[in-house]
Order: sequence, then structure tokens, then C-alpha cells
Amino acid sequence: MQRLRVASRNFPYEVMVGRGAWRAFRGFPQTRYTSTFILTEQGLWQRWGKAFCRDSGLRNPRTVWVPEGEASKSLRMLERVASQLLALGADRRSLLVAFGGGVVGDLGGFVASTYMRGIDYVQVPTTVVAQVDSGIGGKTAVNVGAMKNLLGTFYPPRLVLAEPLVLSTLEERAFRSGLYEVVKHAILAGPSFFRQLEKCLDTLRPANAENLGPVLARAAKVKVDVVTRDEREAGLRRVLNLGHTFGHALEEATHYRRFLHGEAVGWGMLAATELSRRLGLLPVTEAERIKQLIYRVGTLLPICDLIPERVLSLLPRDKKAVGGRIHWVLPERIGRVRIIADVPSRTVAAAFRDVQRADWHE
Amino acid sequence: MQRLRVASRNFPYEVMVGRGAWRAFRGFPQTRYTSTFILTEQGLWQRWGKAFCRDSGLRNPRTVWVPEGEASKSLRMLERVASQLLALGADRRSLLVAFGGGVVGDLGGFVASTYMRGIDYVQVPTTVVAQVDSGIGGKTAVNVGAMKNLLGTFYPPRLVLAEPLVLSTLEERAFRSGLYEVVKHAILAGPSFFRQLEKCLDTLRPANAENLGPVLARAAKVKVDVVTRDEREAGLRRVLNLGHTFGHALEEATHYRRFLHGEAVGWGMLAATELSRRLGLLPVTEAERIKQLIYRVGTLLPICDLIPERVLSLLPRDKKAVGGRIHWVLPERIGRVRIIADVPSRTVAAAFRDVQRADWHE
Repeated sequence: MQRLRVASRNFPYEVMVGRGAWRAFRGFPQTRYTSTFILTEQGLWQRWGKAFCRDSGLRNPRTVWVPEGEASKSLRMLERVASQLLALGADRRSLLVAFGGGVVGDLGGFVASTYMRGIDYVQVPTTVVAQVDSGIGGKTAVNVGAMKNLLGTFYPPRLVLAEPLVLSTLEERAFRSGLYEVVKHAILAGPSFFRQLEKCLDTLRPANAENLGPVLARAAKVKVDVVTRDEREAGLRRVLNLGHTFGHALEEATHYRRFLHGEAVGWGMLAATELSRRLGLLPVTEAERIKQLIYRVGTLLPICDLIPERVLSLLPRDKKAVGGRIHWVLPERIGRVRIIADVPSRTVAAAFRDVQRADWHE
Repeated sequence: MQRLRVASRNFPYEVMVGRGAWRAFRGFPQTRYTSTFILTEQGLWQRWGKAFCRDSGLRNPRTVWVPEGEASKSLRMLERVASQLLALGADRRSLLVAFGGGVVGDLGGFVASTYMRGIDYVQVPTTVVAQVDSGIGGKTAVNVGAMKNLLGTFYPPRLVLAEPLVLSTLEERAFRSGLYEVVKHAILAGPSFFRQLEKCLDTLRPANAENLGPVLARAAKVKVDVVTRDEREAGLRRVLNLGHTFGHALEEATHYRRFLHGEAVGWGMLAATELSRRLGLLPVTEAERIKQLIYRVGTLLPICDLIPERVLSLLPRDKKAVGGRIHWVLPERIGRVRIIADVPSRTVAAAFRDVQRADWHE
């Protein structure tokens, strides 16, 4: 198990990644709190709740259920959870444990940041994406209408516990989707992690989850390093949006039905890589290595049927755009990205068509 | 005009109180923002919007309306306002100006603290309570069901502009209600401010609003000093709850219909004063002076018809109670209060009955 330290504006906190991570909860000052509540999904908790309580030493915590799926990231669910917490007697010195994937983590963090103006919480991420990315850094959010993450806060957890064993019951597709974010972190990290991933990618699967610790820890460290240097997304943190600009447009163009988030990011990284190569920022050989690694994660559902104009028109609606411009995160080589605001739209269109064409010919 | 400085955890900010306060907006770095939005009530803006724009130098700001009344402090309104801001093109570098009383200020602050994970905002309080209390300190909130302020954040504004002239169109009753909070601040502040208030109380009325500057500034300074030393309500900030424990119970017992908030606090301060005297914490002469000043503010709607057991049963539901106990804020003399957790409930009941009896005999 690895212990990573995040320096946050408010207080430092630790991210535990690897086998035995849940046990680290025993060192957490639980007695400081009047009560502990678990926010989780029912099926997930039925499968893993007992193991978590055994490892963490938590006795008879009260649970608050959240239905599975993105629809739970809503103000309605915030209201429901807050009302339940109140009815169960949660006060401002209660502790909330968000036990689940990105939806539970984002919602749970938002609940914690607003319930009685803020209570402490612990993230126990149970998906690949949540363990290496969304569970770390304190970004919380809910969606409003079609707008993802329109409302949220920056509110760091007191502790993050990423136990790879819990990934063993993930569906293959959900698991692979998370690997695209691991690849993203390898592109950001540099040749050493990238090479490690090239070597071991084929061994990464749910059945093998308990051996994932080292790769997950390395991927999580990328996120830890970035948010430690830029908690509020003033600049550096934006590098984590690699693949997300196109990714969001693809998710929206397909009404969030065709792709899992990581898969859309997979396509998005292919497009960003192609765009960078077209702009002469990224050598062809590096571009090729990146693309090969992305392809090896798995077969992505097609994008060749999508009308490019429609996808491209959805790009500027990314809320990360300030004053309407799009900030592209483009790889310059493995281990370095550049953020560029003014990319000619015809080059963007050409890069997207390249990726579509490759999809078509496959 | 007085310029008060609040030291907040995140950044310091200024509270301008007195005639000409709106003009101070001209010194605010507006050009840092991509756009400015006013959150306000339609009637209020129709009366004062032009004057505010003239004084502040703000040109053609876009307005988002909030219906008058406590019901607007809701997640539904948060959702509506956020959707409108998005539709109007607000991005993470937009500025929000909350122009109104406590409801607009609390909701506006909550919107600002969560919209795209936080945008800057300016408070322009337009009621007595908002100018001396709720508009200062960065506490934001909405209600959930019957639970007031269940969800919220600590999120300081960038600037507070309290112009007394705007109070001249308040209804007499709303104006007087705010004066109870001014009295509260005088009890906290000490003999000098208390004496000033004893002298000038009868001159404080809407028609005389433009001369209110000095008293408002002094009352606002009490709040500024407290939140500067305890932004997150770790301890000291609780002194501001003087009169609020009984006050909340009375509001709830009357379904928030009989009293304006300040009026309930008026009754609450009478009860807290009586309780303190009964406990032997407050000399009789000081208690008498405090009660006389409260009585002089105006005639309060009766409480003699309320069943004491019912009111007392509503006391522990105050969410400021940690782990179920009630923290009483009790005056020890003019200028000093003490926070006590364990007051025998029969003494509390006796104090409440005293106050009811005085009401009855009046």
C-alpha cells in the first residue's frame, strides 16, 4: 500500500492506494466525530460493506442509499440525502464516508461541503476512475439539466482509501473505461510510467485486481501532484482535461448513452493527439505510441456515424471555456502537454475527421 | 461612510457602511470579470436599481429575479438561478451582485459559492438586518423542508456595500424588526454603543434613514470583529446567536408566520436576559436596562397564547446544538456574554414563563 500526501489549501490529507488501504481507516481519528454515515449504492454495499467494515474497524455505520447512475448527481438527490442525514441525527460534527464510484464521490463531496455548511468526509472510491482521478482533489458537483457539474465546490476530503480488490467485481467494460484515465495519467507523467503501462496493460483486468496496486498508485500520484500544485484549477490542473474537450462533445452528441465517460476520453485523447500532430507540436513517433496504447485498452464503440459539424458545435459548450474560448490540452511529447487557446477550427475539424476515418477503416 | 475590514481565511474584504457606500463600487476591479449579474427582487430593483447603477457606475447589468419571501431560499431556486445564469452566459469569471435582504443575500451567496464551483460576489444589503448582520461574514444557506439553513457554505463576498438610504422605503415593521439585531449588537459591544442607542433609538426610523450611517456602522463593526476572529463558527461566532435559541423556537412554534425574524430575536433576547438573571449571571439592574431597550424598539406581537411545553420542545432542534445539547448565549453584563451548555430545563421553562407573564400583563 502506498501513502500519498495531498497539500490542500485548508489542510493536508492522505491518499492510501493499494491492498490493505481500507485498513488505514483504523488510524483515522474517528472519536472526533459524533457519528459516521456511509453514502453508497445498495448493491455495491451488499457486496463489499462487510469487508469494508471488517478492514476499517467501523462498527454498525448508518447507511444512506443512492440509486446507481448519473441521474443521482442532482440537487434532488442532495435534498433527499440531506433530509435523511438530518432525520438520522447527523450534526455538524458527523463524518460522511462516500463509498462508491464517481457519482457517489461527487455527490457525497457536495453533500459534505454543504450539509450544515460543511462536515468532514472520507472518499472510498470503488472504480478505477474514482481511485486514480475523481476521488482525489476535492472537486464536488451535481448536474443541472443537461449541464454536467454546473453546481459544485472545491472541498477536500479528510482521507482517501483506494483498495484495488473492490475493482474485482467491476464489469469488464466499466473497468476498461477507467483504464483510459490511467493512460491519460501516463501521458502526463512521462516515459517511465508510460513504458510500465505498455508492458503490463494486457494483465490489467478485474480478475487480476488485487495486483493492480502499483499501477493505480502511480496513476493516483499524477493526480496528487497536480492538485497539490493547483487545487483550484487556476492553471496547471487543466492538464487533467487532456482528452476531455472532445470527450465531452462526444458524450453530449450521443446523449451520454453510447460511451462510458472513460471511453469518450479515450476517443478524445486520440483526437487531441491527432490535433497536436497536425499542429506540428507532437512528433509522429510519439503520436503513434500514444495512439497504440489507447487502442490496446480495448475496442471503442464507433464514432464514424456522427456528423462532425454537430460534434464540433458542441465543443465550445465546455464550461471550462472562459469567456467562450476553448482551451485545448495537447500532448507535446510523452510527459508534457501544452494548453493552447487559439486553434483554428478547420484544424480541429480535420483532426476529428482523421480519427473518424481511422474508426471507419478499422 | 465607514470602511471596515474583514480578515477572512481566503482573502480580506471591505464592508462599506453609510451614505455613499454604493459609490465605493467604482473602486472595485470590475474589469477582472467577464460579466456582472444582479440577483434581486423585481419591486426592489424597480425602486432602487437606477440609483444603484448611477452611484456604482455599473452599466446595463443583467438581472436575475428572485420572488420575495423566505420560500426563495430553496434548492429549487438555486437550480432556477443557476440555469438562468448559464443561459445568460455567466462563466466562472463572472461576478454576482446580491442586491436585497437576507433571503437574496443568503441565496445569492450560496449560488456564488457553487456556480461552476464558485464565482466572486458582492453583497449589497438592503434591510437593517442584512446591513449589520447577515450580509457580513460569508454565511450562505438555503432551507430544506422545515429545516432552516440546512444546506449552505462559508463563502466570503468580495465587498459589502451598505447604503442606509435604501432603508427609507422599508415598511415600518420590517425596519423595526432589524433594530432588534442592532440592540443585540449593542449588548455584545458594550456600554458605549449601548448608551448611544439608548439616546437615539427613538430617532431611528425609515423616514430618517439617511442619518442612520453612524449607528449602522457601529452595529456592523460588531459583526466584522466577531467574524474576523472566528469565521467558521468554531466558538466565538456563536455569541451572535444571542436571542436566537428561543427566537428559532418561537418562529417554529408560530410556523414562521407571526414574527419577522428580528422580532422573534427580540423575544428571544428578553428570555435569554431573564434566564441569565435567574441563573445569577446577570445583575438585576443590567437586566432591566437591556429589557427596557428591547421594549422601546416597539410592540411585539404576543407570545402569551403559546403553550410553553411546545415552545420548549422545539428548542433542542436548533441545529447549532452539537450532539443534541443546547448552547445558551447569556448576557453577563452589557458588553459580555457567556456560552453555557448545561442549563437545567426547569430554569429555562421558568425564564420563558416570566417573559410570557410580562407579555400577558402588558
